[in-house]
Amino acid sequence: MFLSEMNKDQLAAFKKETEAQYEQFKSLGLSLNMSRGNPCREQLELSVGMLDVFDDGDFMSENGVDVRNYGMLDGIPEAKKFFADMIGVHSDEIIIFGNSSLNAMFWAVQCAFNKGVLGGTPWSKLDKVKFLCPVPGYDRHFKVTEFFGVEMINIPMTPTGPDMDMVERLVAEDDSIKGIWCVPQYSNPDGISYSDETVRRFAALKPAAKDFRIFWDNAYCIHHLTESPKLILNILDEAKKAGNENIVYIFGSTSKVTFPGAGVAVMGASRENTEALKKFLGISIISYDKMNQLRHVKFFGTFDNMREHMKKHMAIIAPKFELVCKTLKKEIAPLGIGTWTEPEGGYFVSFNALNGCAKRIVQLCADAGVTLTGAGATFPYNTDPDDRNIRLAPTYPSLDELRKAMELFVICVKLASAEKLLAE
Amino acid sequence: MFLSEMNKDQLAAFKKETEAQYEQFKSLGLSLNMSRGNPCREQLELSVGMLDVFDDGDFMSENGVDVRNYGMLDGIPEAKKFFADMIGVHSDEIIIFGNSSLNAMFWAVQCAFNKGVLGGTPWSKLDKVKFLCPVPGYDRHFKVTEFFGVEMINIPMTPTGPDMDMVERLVAEDDSIKGIWCVPQYSNPDGISYSDETVRRFAALKPAAKDFRIFWDNAYCIHHLTESPKLILNILDEAKKAGNENIVYIFGSTSKVTFPGAGVAVMGASRENTEALKKFLGISIISYDKMNQLRHVKFFGTFDNMREHMKKHMAIIAPKFELVCKTLKKEIAPLGIGTWTEPEGGYFVSFNALNGCAKRIVQLCADAGVTLTGAGATFPYNTDPDDRNIRLAPTYPSLDELRKAMELFVICVKLASAEKLLAE
Repeated sequence: MFLSEMNKDQLAAFKKETEAQYEQFKSLGLSLNMSRGNPCREQLELSVGMLDVFDDGDFMSENGVDVRNYGMLDGIPEAKKFFADMIGVHSDEIIIFGNSSLNAMFWAVQCAFNKGVLGGTPWSKLDKVKFLCPVPGYDRHFKVTEFFGVEMINIPMTPTGPDMDMVERLVAEDDSIKGIWCVPQYSNPDGISYSDETVRRFAALKPAAKDFRIFWDNAYCIHHLTESPKLILNILDEAKKAGNENIVYIFGSTSKVTFPGAGVAVMGASRENTEALKKFLGISIISYDKMNQLRHVKFFGTFDNMREHMKKHMAIIAPKFELVCKTLKKEIAPLGIGTWTEPEGGYFVSFNALNGCAKRIVQLCADAGVTLTGAGATFPYNTDPDDRNIRLAPTYPSLDELRKAMELFVICVKLASAEKLLAE
Repeated sequence: MFLSEMNKDQLAAFKKETEAQYEQFKSLGLSLNMSRGNPCREQLELSVGMLDVFDDGDFMSENGVDVRNYGMLDGIPEAKKFFADMIGVHSDEIIIFGNSSLNAMFWAVQCAFNKGVLGGTPWSKLDKVKFLCPVPGYDRHFKVTEFFGVEMINIPMTPTGPDMDMVERLVAEDDSIKGIWCVPQYSNPDGISYSDETVRRFAALKPAAKDFRIFWDNAYCIHHLTESPKLILNILDEAKKAGNENIVYIFGSTSKVTFPGAGVAVMGASRENTEALKKFLGISIISYDKMNQLRHVKFFGTFDNMREHMKKHMAIIAPKFELVCKTLKKEIAPLGIGTWTEPEGGYFVSFNALNGCAKRIVQLCADAGVTLTGAGATFPYNTDPDDRNIRLAPTYPSLDELRKAMELFVICVKLASAEKLLAE
């Protein structure tokens, strides 16, 4: 029976029963953190062999540069070739950064603010800069634009990607809109992969602002949870076909391939974009960690090997996603008090509670020892207008811990929902 | 005989003879790069053992965090303790960055521009921001402030550090002066160590701008070329004594201790400064490479061991500095056509040619296959008003290569000097 169909007495009884379950959980003294998309220990162990690649004492890049020394600002050639395959660009359309793609994105926004984009006015000199933000989305994207004082406009997500009618209309009519944040493959947190039509419409965008850029954070491009993944279209290829190749900045990293703390981040873009950005790169750094670049290239050898490596990740984490979805299906679906995504890749399950319940659920979980991503975090300014979206990150806990956490989570959803319905 | 005392005929004969030597050198087809302060291969080999510290499979920081994963934004505790000793602060007065102190400096300037310093107006909102730049100085410092549109004011260096009368006067009278770039120990390129009085006067500065900061780039704090180095005073200690502890940001790195491409960079400052800056840090990155932090701590164990390690560097590079100074003393001093520093640490010998000769000397060297740091690079806007300063970086070439390069260098100095004197 749906909770919404219960009368007050039934609801009160349901709430009382759920409260008892909740109190029992509280007494367990759990302490679990599901707030971030952290890989678990078994996943980290998969890449430990990478630390032995220099045992032969050979530190030379293929162009004769010692990777231990300074130099090669935009990356060693073999890393450019290797990672170009990963994000779908040519090896002269890529910059290799340090361990953080977020840092690369921050830097790209910052360059636009200080120096403008391809000769355009520096964004810092404009009265107003706006970004489109598909929601729910990645909290750290929104924090970057918030830092620079950008006005963020929510764009609803659909099962095929952001609402493209709205995107096209807004960028055409307002030249203060300078960018959009996208996670096109297995979006954070919804796990939505943009349809071919969506990618093509992005590639063909004709914004009023010539310096508009799509920030295409392809963080989960090889992070599949099925054997036969559906890949999104290559946006740079599509943009070239549309005569629009400067419109996109592509980002990626190995943070969830090798080590979150010590991966390699990359940015792909048209030659014109990358050449312009490289001119600023040497102002802020002499060179990134080329030892780690070569470590990655030597460890994997080929892109195919990296894809095989990702299947080992899948074997570890896919059962965790299954557990989350199975629990929700069993405990929440019959009550009609939530919907969620069943992602085929990425790192999250996006849960939508009844409106007005997300904060309460997260608080109830926290009080019983399970930390979730803060309610609201998936929206700009930390404000979910419906207070309903919760990002679940199932990868880090063990299956046993996750089972406990999910048992608690559904109890909290039930309790918050009953409270809400009783108060109406 | 000084070249300036020669008559025209003597000068012409000297020039002809030097030209012949130069042409002979040109025919050798040399190809040497002395433009940057790069360690040589033997120096890089000193730290290769660092790559084996994880052979035991233990990746845990002392607080139980797996360094391979996300987290510990401002550094792992053992790295904070270890590097606090290196730059002379407490372990709660330090932030651990990635592989680049330049990147940390750029970031600190950028935070000031976007968010202001300790609640002050963001520098980007001010009509004018000025920095004091002791000259000659480090080109990459000047490029950072140039990037942000800062007006740079040259401050002459003296044997005890920057001209402090001028520094004190300027900061007291002009509240648009927001900072100063300093390399206090073995300054780049002069190799000057600031006297105790200079450090105390810096520590006690009373600028009109409350958000003025000393950017104290202690890049060469343990990079000695003598057995009994004279250490500069601890500026944060002195600033605390003067009730002025917020005035300084201290930077350092292991770029020239372990690997230039894969060292660890750090920033030290008062608790109030570091707490304020940490609030911005998480916007641009999730965490720096903690594996590399722990690699360093495990490899060295103690600060004393790191100091011993630096003696191995000294054994390799001190003979190179001797060779440079000996060659200059033998070939240039008798002619009175140049002065230079004899540094007791750091990475450079600063050579001052006759006014108007530096660009020509660097060009002559380049034409014969030896690349030096560009003339002018040691001044803001790449403009040496006297066109006389050349930064020599002797560490990278082998002794044999360096001998050849210095033979060429002195020939070029002689030739350019003769050309100049003949044209007068």
